[in-house]
Amino acid sequence: MEVPVTIDLEVEGGHILTLDEQSTEWMSGTVCISGNRIVFIGNPADRPSSFVTRETIDASGKIVMPTFFNCHTHAAMSIFRGLANDLSLELWLNNYIWPAEKRNVSRETVFLGTLISAMEMIKSGTSAFADMYFFQEDVARASEQCGIRVILGEALFDFPTPGTGTPEGSLAYTRSLHQRFTNHPLISVAVTTHAPYTCSPEVIRMAAELSEELGIPANIHLAETKDETETIQKRYGKSPTRYLYDLGFLTSRTVCNHGIYLSDEDVELIRQTGASIVTAVNSNMKLGSGICRVQELLQKGVNVAIGTDGAASNNNQSVLRELQQVGRIEKAYHEDPAVISASRLLSMATINGAKAYGRGNQLGSLKTGKMADLMIINPDQPHWYPRYDPVSSIAYSMQSEDVESVIINGRIVMRNRELTLVDEKKYLHEMRRLVLR
Amino acid sequence: MEVPVTIDLEVEGGHILTLDEQSTEWMSGTVCISGNRIVFIGNPADRPSSFVTRETIDASGKIVMPTFFNCHTHAAMSIFRGLANDLSLELWLNNYIWPAEKRNVSRETVFLGTLISAMEMIKSGTSAFADMYFFQEDVARASEQCGIRVILGEALFDFPTPGTGTPEGSLAYTRSLHQRFTNHPLISVAVTTHAPYTCSPEVIRMAAELSEELGIPANIHLAETKDETETIQKRYGKSPTRYLYDLGFLTSRTVCNHGIYLSDEDVELIRQTGASIVTAVNSNMKLGSGICRVQELLQKGVNVAIGTDGAASNNNQSVLRELQQVGRIEKAYHEDPAVISASRLLSMATINGAKAYGRGNQLGSLKTGKMADLMIINPDQPHWYPRYDPVSSIAYSMQSEDVESVIINGRIVMRNRELTLVDEKKYLHEMRRLVLR
Repeated sequence: MEVPVTIDLEVEGGHILTLDEQSTEWMSGTVCISGNRIVFIGNPADRPSSFVTRETIDASGKIVMPTFFNCHTHAAMSIFRGLANDLSLELWLNNYIWPAEKRNVSRETVFLGTLISAMEMIKSGTSAFADMYFFQEDVARASEQCGIRVILGEALFDFPTPGTGTPEGSLAYTRSLHQRFTNHPLISVAVTTHAPYTCSPEVIRMAAELSEELGIPANIHLAETKDETETIQKRYGKSPTRYLYDLGFLTSRTVCNHGIYLSDEDVELIRQTGASIVTAVNSNMKLGSGICRVQELLQKGVNVAIGTDGAASNNNQSVLRELQQVGRIEKAYHEDPAVISASRLLSMATINGAKAYGRGNQLGSLKTGKMADLMIINPDQPHWYPRYDPVSSIAYSMQSEDVESVIINGRIVMRNRELTLVDEKKYLHEMRRLVLR
Repeated sequence: MEVPVTIDLEVEGGHILTLDEQSTEWMSGTVCISGNRIVFIGNPADRPSSFVTRETIDASGKIVMPTFFNCHTHAAMSIFRGLANDLSLELWLNNYIWPAEKRNVSRETVFLGTLISAMEMIKSGTSAFADMYFFQEDVARASEQCGIRVILGEALFDFPTPGTGTPEGSLAYTRSLHQRFTNHPLISVAVTTHAPYTCSPEVIRMAAELSEELGIPANIHLAETKDETETIQKRYGKSPTRYLYDLGFLTSRTVCNHGIYLSDEDVELIRQTGASIVTAVNSNMKLGSGICRVQELLQKGVNVAIGTDGAASNNNQSVLRELQQVGRIEKAYHEDPAVISASRLLSMATINGAKAYGRGNQLGSLKTGKMADLMIINPDQPHWYPRYDPVSSIAYSMQSEDVESVIINGRIVMRNRELTLVDEKKYLHEMRRLVLR
């Protein structure tokens, strides 16, 4: 006799884009979820007869695909979204952002800012983000409340920071976070190192050691601006990338954000070590920092993923907008519409992100055995018509609001545009009150 | 005794951005509409006591602003949206778009394609578009059905075209369209000339003469690609701009689309004649054609407005996405976040568009006496929080779907995301059937 298998959730009838290595698609397929795992994906007719489904979502006429991975943000910085744009970077940081951070960054504002960003991320189809900021317990708390995955770690700087105060303090705090969240279904920890120009060789070395000891990712801003490159060249007589390499910071566990000013030698160091690059194109454009040469990095075999950066500089937390922008900017830069394909853009936003954080075997595509992180997209809007190829529609026409429902770790966190775990109106109201204060 | 004045529609309580010359705002204002005109705008307390309001829309907590002007598109080309992207321009045109046009462009498909684009435009806050394509009576029919303004004219080419067949035929047809639509509340006519490389000096001259005789705008693709510039240089020994200038085509009634490859002399000719430039940045990026130097043109005193181009190359019909992209690309190109401001971007998408088509005194900003074209935006989404300055939020954070209601010529054409005059589902269904055929 067949033993019945409980299927907690089945998403049936959608056009499934698995985004796996073979770009497998089903025009009208089904995804069966048991607990937090995908246990079957394919034609409904092939579903094992032992399956007993508890809840079904009808996805007929919809598109079902993996959720996005936001590999770089400062989620709490949504509290500064739209604060004094259109200024030079120096004026903006010195006269607005830094004074505002000094006055306003606290456990309460980090919690609220992270919540707002997490809600925006879920509503635009993101199920996981890597955060770099302070008060990371509160980032954990906000993420848990929304049901979104987070990779967190207290940001390391040479100079005093809110919260832990010293680099040693931040490292100890990151270690304690790692202990606390080991085996947590949604939260994991990385050694979050600010940048070559804000972290001394000692701090970089300590960060690398902790990452190695605990076997966890290490992330950092790298080669974001010309200024940074010149500063490091003057200070150490080498490029920022070489600086990190010489200190043993670059490994396959390392995630380098921005990666705009990279020489051929720098790219080769990144390729050799297996470190990943995360582009944050909309932030880089808006700040006038420069453009990451994505296609060249991909061609050289570097894993390139996508991040939004914080909402103070972007000003959105939608990975969809980023992948669409990478496509446009690559084609514009190379003056060649064939230089990058829609499916490559989708990979960057999904599996490449999972790989960057060492989760490629669990996340980033729809596969039996992988974790159940997926979204249902409603293409019933004029901008989706006609639809010769949904992958192309996603890369060039889709809007973030077309994401209808989101499942993270087997749980429905948004259903028909309504967040299920968090009271959206309540926190938007709190944010309004915070700004008035 | 006071004579009562009937107010057909009042939009009350919203944060009103008039986008007039003084950037006048009311935090909680009212717009009173009688027939197709704005008859009062300001504080509700200052509304004349003689007003008798028939219908009120409560816009509390919302943003009210002028609708967008899409100065360049080929609306019917939505039928080719997403058809074979990621190819070189030559392959794409020769192997896909041109054969597809040959087989599929008919009165029926132009009607349907235009409808789909018009629906997308309204749903993203656009109230007027300038079209360049064939079978323009059917473009008129589709636009009328949606209640959107259109500036149309049969596209002129040297070679045979669908519909009228010859340039003389297209000119005669344009003349008859002008007669037919004189005094139409929504439809007006322009002499729609394809490009310097597809129109002989005779055709350009005839177009210029018709534009002058009827006192109507003339529009054209200009300096969109390097190839075009080289072709015209070889053929006539001058730049495409100088070619048009020498034929008397450039006047204050002329609208030049794209304007990417312009020398200093070309820009000076455009400035002197008072012609406008329309940038279509997302299409240009996606096709790898190059980038219009918007800020330099504005600084030299040229009127620069915004167009989406057709959905085959963009692949959207949202002016909002274009104005946002102009901001990012200018900041990226100049490596200077201060190079262009949010309010400048909004002007380009509204009043500059109206000016380009000689309608600056009737459209493009909210003012007593101007036509009642406005939109209500719902900012109650995480990506709008917080909101230090709504103009900045629109330029850097807003999504097209945040447009909640649209009023064109005093009539509500979209209410709470539902189109009021056209059966959206029916036509999306017809488009699906057309593609299957």
